Amino acid sequence: MSERIFDRDGRWWDLPSGAANTIADVPGVTVGHATLQAGAARTGVTAILPHDGDLFRHPVPAGMAVLNGFGKSAGLMQLAELGRIETPILLTNTFGVPACATALIRRAITENPGIGRHLPTVNPLVLECNDGRINDIQAMAVGEAMAQQAIDAAGPVFEQGTVGAGTGMRTFGFAGAIGSASRRVTLPSGIAYTLGALVLSNFGRPGDLRVLGRRVGTPAEHRSDPEDKGSVIIVYATDAPLDARQLGRLSRRAGAALGRLGSFWADQSGDVAIAFSTANRLSLEGDVEPAARLVEARMNPFLQAAVEAAEEAVLNGLWHARPVAGYDGLRLPVLGGQLSPDRLMP
Amino acid sequence: MSERIFDRDGRWWDLPSGAANTIADVPGVTVGHATLQAGAARTGVTAILPHDGDLFRHPVPAGMAVLNGFGKSAGLMQLAELGRIETPILLTNTFGVPACATALIRRAITENPGIGRHLPTVNPLVLECNDGRINDIQAMAVGEAMAQQAIDAAGPVFEQGTVGAGTGMRTFGFAGAIGSASRRVTLPSGIAYTLGALVLSNFGRPGDLRVLGRRVGTPAEHRSDPEDKGSVIIVYATDAPLDARQLGRLSRRAGAALGRLGSFWADQSGDVAIAFSTANRLSLEGDVEPAARLVEARMNPFLQAAVEAAEEAVLNGLWHARPVAGYDGLRLPVLGGQLSPDRLMP
Amino acid sequence: MSERIFDRDGRWWDLPSGAANTIADVPGVTVGHATLQAGAARTGVTAILPHDGDLFRHPVPAGMAVLNGFGKSAGLMQLAELGRIETPILLTNTFGVPACATALIRRAITENPGIGRHLPTVNPLVLECNDGRINDIQAMAVGEAMAQQAIDAAGPVFEQGTVGAGTGMRTFGFAGAIGSASRRVTLPSGIAYTLGALVLSNFGRPGDLRVLGRRVGTPAEHRSDPEDKGSVIIVYATDAPLDARQLGRLSRRAGAALGRLGSFWADQSGDVAIAFSTANRLSLEGDVEPAARLVEARMNPFLQAAVEAAEEAVLNGLWHARPVAGYDGLRLPVLGGQLSPDRLMP
Amino acid sequence: MSERIFDRDGRWWDLPSGAANTIADVPGVTVGHATLQAGAARTGVTAILPHDGDLFRHPVPAGMAVLNGFGKSAGLMQLAELGRIETPILLTNTFGVPACATALIRRAITENPGIGRHLPTVNPLVLECNDGRINDIQAMAVGEAMAQQAIDAAGPVFEQGTVGAGTGMRTFGFAGAIGSASRRVTLPSGIAYTLGALVLSNFGRPGDLRVLGRRVGTPAEHRSDPEDKGSVIIVYATDAPLDARQLGRLSRRAGAALGRLGSFWADQSGDVAIAFSTANRLSLEGDVEPAARLVEARMNPFLQAAVEAAEEAVLNGLWHARPVAGYDGLRLPVLGGQLSPDRLMP
Repeated sequence: MSERIFDRDGRWWDLPSGAANTIADVPGVTVGHATLQAGAARTGVTAILPHDGDLFRHPVPAGMAVLNGFGKSAGLMQLAELGRIETPILLTNTFGVPACATALIRRAITENPGIGRHLPTVNPLVLECNDGRINDIQAMAVGEAMAQQAIDAAGPVFEQGTVGAGTGMRTFGFAGAIGSASRRVTLPSGIAYTLGALVLSNFGRPGDLRVLGRRVGTPAEHRSDPEDKGSVIIVYATDAPLDARQLGRLSRRAGAALGRLGSFWADQSGDVAIAFSTANRLSLEGDVEPAARLVEARMNPFLQAAVEAAEEAVLNGLWHARPVAGYDGLRLPVLGGQLSPDRLMP
Repeated sequence: MSERIFDRDGRWWDLPSGAANTIADVPGVTVGHATLQAGAARTGVTAILPHDGDLFRHPVPAGMAVLNGFGKSAGLMQLAELGRIETPILLTNTFGVPACATALIRRAITENPGIGRHLPTVNPLVLECNDGRINDIQAMAVGEAMAQQAIDAAGPVFEQGTVGAGTGMRTFGFAGAIGSASRRVTLPSGIAYTLGALVLSNFGRPGDLRVLGRRVGTPAEHRSDPEDKGSVIIVYATDAPLDARQLGRLSRRAGAALGRLGSFWADQSGDVAIAFSTANRLSLEGDVEPAARLVEARMNPFLQAAVEAAEEAVLNGLWHARPVAGYDGLRLPVLGGQLSPDRLMP
Repeated sequence: MSERIFDRDGRWWDLPSGAANTIADVPGVTVGHATLQAGAARTGVTAILPHDGDLFRHPVPAGMAVLNGFGKSAGLMQLAELGRIETPILLTNTFGVPACATALIRRAITENPGIGRHLPTVNPLVLECNDGRINDIQAMAVGEAMAQQAIDAAGPVFEQGTVGAGTGMRTFGFAGAIGSASRRVTLPSGIAYTLGALVLSNFGRPGDLRVLGRRVGTPAEHRSDPEDKGSVIIVYATDAPLDARQLGRLSRRAGAALGRLGSFWADQSGDVAIAFSTANRLSLEGDVEPAARLVEARMNPFLQAAVEAAEEAVLNGLWHARPVAGYDGLRLPVLGGQLSPDRLMP
Repeated sequence: MSERIFDRDGRWWDLPSGAANTIADVPGVTVGHATLQAGAARTGVTAILPHDGDLFRHPVPAGMAVLNGFGKSAGLMQLAELGRIETPILLTNTFGVPACATALIRRAITENPGIGRHLPTVNPLVLECNDGRINDIQAMAVGEAMAQQAIDAAGPVFEQGTVGAGTGMRTFGFAGAIGSASRRVTLPSGIAYTLGALVLSNFGRPGDLRVLGRRVGTPAEHRSDPEDKGSVIIVYATDAPLDARQLGRLSRRAGAALGRLGSFWADQSGDVAIAFSTANRLSLEGDVEPAARLVEARMNPFLQAAVEAAEEAVLNGLWHARPVAGYDGLRLPVLGGQLSPDRLMP
């Protein structure tokens, strides 16, 4: 059953959502969080697993789009070159990237002791936003254990809002967050696929947010820092057989979703999208492998789904966010509490 | 005096427009059209001149963004490599590109007889959309003379809507068009600059258009071809001293504007943005040249201006479009006639 | 039977050549020339056909690499986006690009009358070098008829050297040229594939050429124009099932070959490589198509083959070049005549 | 005084070297090493400092080229977007990247306590190769202290060969290494600039090396692992006023140098080049800053210098390498000891 909060009537969006309206509607995809709220820390790690097997030996095809490269994510250069993901995807704060990368390296070595020896090295994939307004980012509180904890917690049902990597994030001046959504695409032949999005949302200038096309003001007391210095990470998953190039095309559409939400992809906002397919796992051995491929002329519903899912994922994240007091006392408003019921429709 | 049609109160957009609210608000930039409506032809050429001098000897810095590369524009590879524009910019239909390129080559040789001999060859810059639904594109009616005519017609005042390259275009199922808009950016030191946009608008699926955040239906009889197979070209000009890299960053923001208008950057839509600065013309001689450069931390108002100006340029083009009967009798609705006054506000 | 001129003993290169040591060793690939030597014209067109069917309806997967974007080729933006080639590949001089593009458009429309109407437009692929030192390039002597003539002449056996698009070219100060070579790759499972290269060679500063690692002087009288203002186009074909991303990786290796030959990829040299596979023709219809894919870990022999074939193709072109007097009397030396037999070995 | 080991007569290369023939010939550039040979560790860190000031507040313009993206370097996405370097450049082994990144973050915060709070986060730049054949890379022996130690050791005179990050590297089957070289470029106006290169060299298949054009065999006992699974990092510095785009063009030429040395940029070799200019430090404050810029038509000698310096830097590194016994007993041959004097000339 679809869990739509916004636009239940389908006037703003056209495509139906999957059963849970999350990225985990894509069969096999799981999500887990580790959240740290202690002392001056309000931060965490969120893990997305494309499948429950050994990703190093069974990588999935992937593409990416750097909408704005003001960011410090790890693993994107090799993702672009090889068109594949070979570790869990970790989301965290900017200065947590090294610890998460180390955790992924250690985990891969444990599973494949030949890594870096007779096997190639592993490419840890860690994406980030700066939660420094709420979290004391200089304390570097994210450690390897948190990364492992988020991976261990991964399952098909997961929390949204102020949780995991989303704990200390800020979006258009509001609290949060981790959000997710999904869309169903049915092709002419009747085959149906799912596309899901999960966002780590930390972007947007206070006062710029558009909810289903209507501009939402941020309370004046929260506009003291009027710059957009955040970032946003969009992760797409699908069970449709898109290859790396097609997944790159799909990733770029996250930029349209950000525009709809009111963002101008600000200078200091590292806006990055990645996409993977759970079809056609890649082989490390053998000479030639069989693969199915979506006919290019069928890309449109997936591109539309990518825009809709990313836009809704951000809104869902904001909806689920809870009040957080920053390490220095800053309190961010929560969007959900301010939205009258008519704002949930276009 | 600003010529705002949409959002006169500044509730949807924040930045003020330039005097004429067109790309020609950037000092020195001129625009000209050649329009052909005869027989089965409903097409044309639109020329944008960064300055009135010899562009080959005095190129301007430029950047670009291929949002979706399903297109046949000429000159972009070298623009990306060298970060400069060295001919007028011509817009036309897809199959008119070769004629326009030839016209630009001949014009450059006339002005600089050493081209291709002791001077390098010239890089003609021609961008296109497919007007094949209205214009009999297979007739290849665009000739070199039309290209020259558009250049000769260039001036600071120019028509928008169903004119020049926009004559046979279609946008979200509506007629048109060529559109333009501008924004003023004032920096902390008090220096003010102008950013202008001109669009050749031929994109968007019928029924998907959002005008200032509200979805606008296309009359049902015009939804017979529900696919988005168009394209859109966005040309930015500014007198601010952005270098090629910064102009590339700026160009990418056109994607946010397309998203706000309701587009998902469809598969068969060649969506391309270019941007040039009239400051810091480039030298062909000497060893080192002086240049000013915008401090990167001041990019934000320009990025915002790029989104606002492109969004408004598309709307302005639709507003000015006139009814056109296609070569095969297809009649496209005109948006302007359908917009009640309240639709001009968010 | 392999037609090796250089390094017959395999001391410089490791991989065996195909039967004819040309790009046409890849089954189905054909090449044709149209040459014009009349009046001040010393120019032409060379056509490469990935297969003998309708390329618009049966495109082939393709990748590309812009090593240096100082060039005016047509069709590369869409090749990069869609990863496919849908017309014959035409090579010609810089100012011949528009005529060749027009010829490809007309040809595609003739075969598919729906193009630009209910079918998308077609993406003509034309690559170029500037033959302006030998050919009176300003005369724009390349016309649509020559393009068609080159396509009609295409076959599995073709001439190299001073012919077709190579007629007026110059390489490291020497005459020429069109050149070709091929390599055989055998994978562990015993499957064997062919990789072929064809180059339009117009690059390199006089005095910089290295033949199998030894620097070859250019006669002093030919060093009056010491700059490297040429270009080089490298076209790869293979029957191995590489996808678009892999073909892009392969294309980039042309840069290593240019380095071995003594080039530093000069500023005004438009150095571009493209690659296509004849396996896995792409569908325009249906939802999902099957495709085989080379396992990534098997890329190395193909990458090596790409370097060897491009390097040898340039040398083969120079070897076959004949003396040409330029339109203004300039005479270029011919490398072949100056190479003592020991220069054919490392 | 120029310290040329190879090609003292200038028959293979054309341009003169700087005084020390290292990257530190560029005024203000310094290099430092931290080397660890203990237990199973044979690894280290090498630091390159563009200037001795606060790089976060006074970044330098920079460009980059991903020749082959099979690698795990940190900081390249933002370098590409913003065209600047804002920390020291650290080179290390693949699994040492997180520790080095953390060290750079901590160092930047110490110098600028507002980082991540009212100032943006910092972008640590760490490049890597896999030294896993010699070093027990799984032990993750590189720690933050080593990174700081390398930075502290930076000076204008530095060791080459088996030192710092080069300690456990392997090149074409031989030991090593860190290498460096430089070139002087004099422009028509008489202004002279320096371009320097420093390489972390860990690439090339045994048996493929070309020294000044002659193929150098690797002793048969060292060919047991015939694959090229290494990587190479090339860092360029110059005092010429190249902007970010021009530095990107320059970086790409490292690919030609790798080709000359015998590499085909193998599949599993992460080949990355970066370049920075010490002219025109960038401002974080103010609106517009002055900047000088090299006229594009003067790029050629710098492009040539980039090829020559990178090629020689690899050879110099191999020349200075010393015998190393791997953690598992593997002994790599040393090139220097095998080169007869005639091999130092082309």
